[in-house]
Amino acid sequence: MRSGCPINLATEALGDRWSLVILRDLIFGGRRTYRELLDHSLEGIATNILAARLRKLETEGFLTAARDPAHKQRVIYSLTEQAIALVPVLAVLGDWGVRFLPVEEPLAVRARVLAAGGPAMWDAFMAELREEHLGVHRPAGSRSVRGELEAAYRTVARRDGTASEGDEALTHRGVVPG
Amino acid sequence: MRSGCPINLATEALGDRWSLVILRDLIFGGRRTYRELLDHSLEGIATNILAARLRKLETEGFLTAARDPAHKQRVIYSLTEQAIALVPVLAVLGDWGVRFLPVEEPLAVRARVLAAGGPAMWDAFMAELREEHLGVHRPAGSRSVRGELEAAYRTVARRDGTASEGDEALTHRGVVPG
Repeated sequence: MRSGCPINLATEALGDRWSLVILRDLIFGGRRTYRELLDHSLEGIATNILAARLRKLETEGFLTAARDPAHKQRVIYSLTEQAIALVPVLAVLGDWGVRFLPVEEPLAVRARVLAAGGPAMWDAFMAELREEHLGVHRPAGSRSVRGELEAAYRTVARRDGTASEGDEALTHRGVVPG
Repeated sequence: MRSGCPINLATEALGDRWSLVILRDLIFGGRRTYRELLDHSLEGIATNILAARLRKLETEGFLTAARDPAHKQRVIYSLTEQAIALVPVLAVLGDWGVRFLPVEEPLAVRARVLAAGGPAMWDAFMAELREEHLGVHRPAGSRSVRGELEAAYRTVARRDGTASEGDEALTHRGVVPG
């Protein structure tokens, strides 16, 4: 490592043009497999880059990989606590992006809703991700922040006529490794 | 651009291993010139990388450059509002780094203090940076968040016997371009 400064270490772990985008697709898009990440990539990620980045994210403690019990050929990726804890970073970074970068409106809606929701919404979303990815159960009927973000997105995308299947979250399969 | 998603655009603007580290040195370290950024670099940035990244940060709207009126050979860099608005991102990212990455303690102190200070401290720090870099005056006697962060750092660094000149903020010159 170049120094033990937290910002430097964060750029060493996440400072490339794909890692945060892949984590975004796992966190907000509900993607769990290589195929889902590839086929639904908004940015058209190349197969070799996706494979290399998934290995790097696994090595660096952001993801764990497990065989799908229903389909042995398929690997299911799960977020670790280290990755789930990026939700506030993505919320604040998304809010900054909406203010200063040339975002496209339907794609910016989730960032706007998540920023407006503040820490209470981020905590609820992290609890939802811990349930999906780490098997940490929540009370029945708990808030689905991903559902709220998707609903907001679909409302704007329908209005603008820009909805596309690739942008929407996939149905969660409920597969938790281990 | 690859997509108009705010997270994607943010990684396109800042997703490399140096941009955030250089902005960190301007924001927290008070560096304003190429020479200061080079000589005090914790990570030992190379001259050609520093020069290229400064050009990129200027092109992408994070920095402006102006000749030092006292020393025509020297260029003084100023943060733009777009860069100053990264303070909450750096605070939340630093907090995450402290929790999950192998940080070195004296270098982690400022991140801990900034995270604990919350949005009120971030707002005060942004006002301080707007005064230094954009000439937006504050009332006399306003809070110096950089001073508070430096004091916290020096306390821990002295205790650990690891203080080094390169880690400390340079005295602000009060040079504002334009």
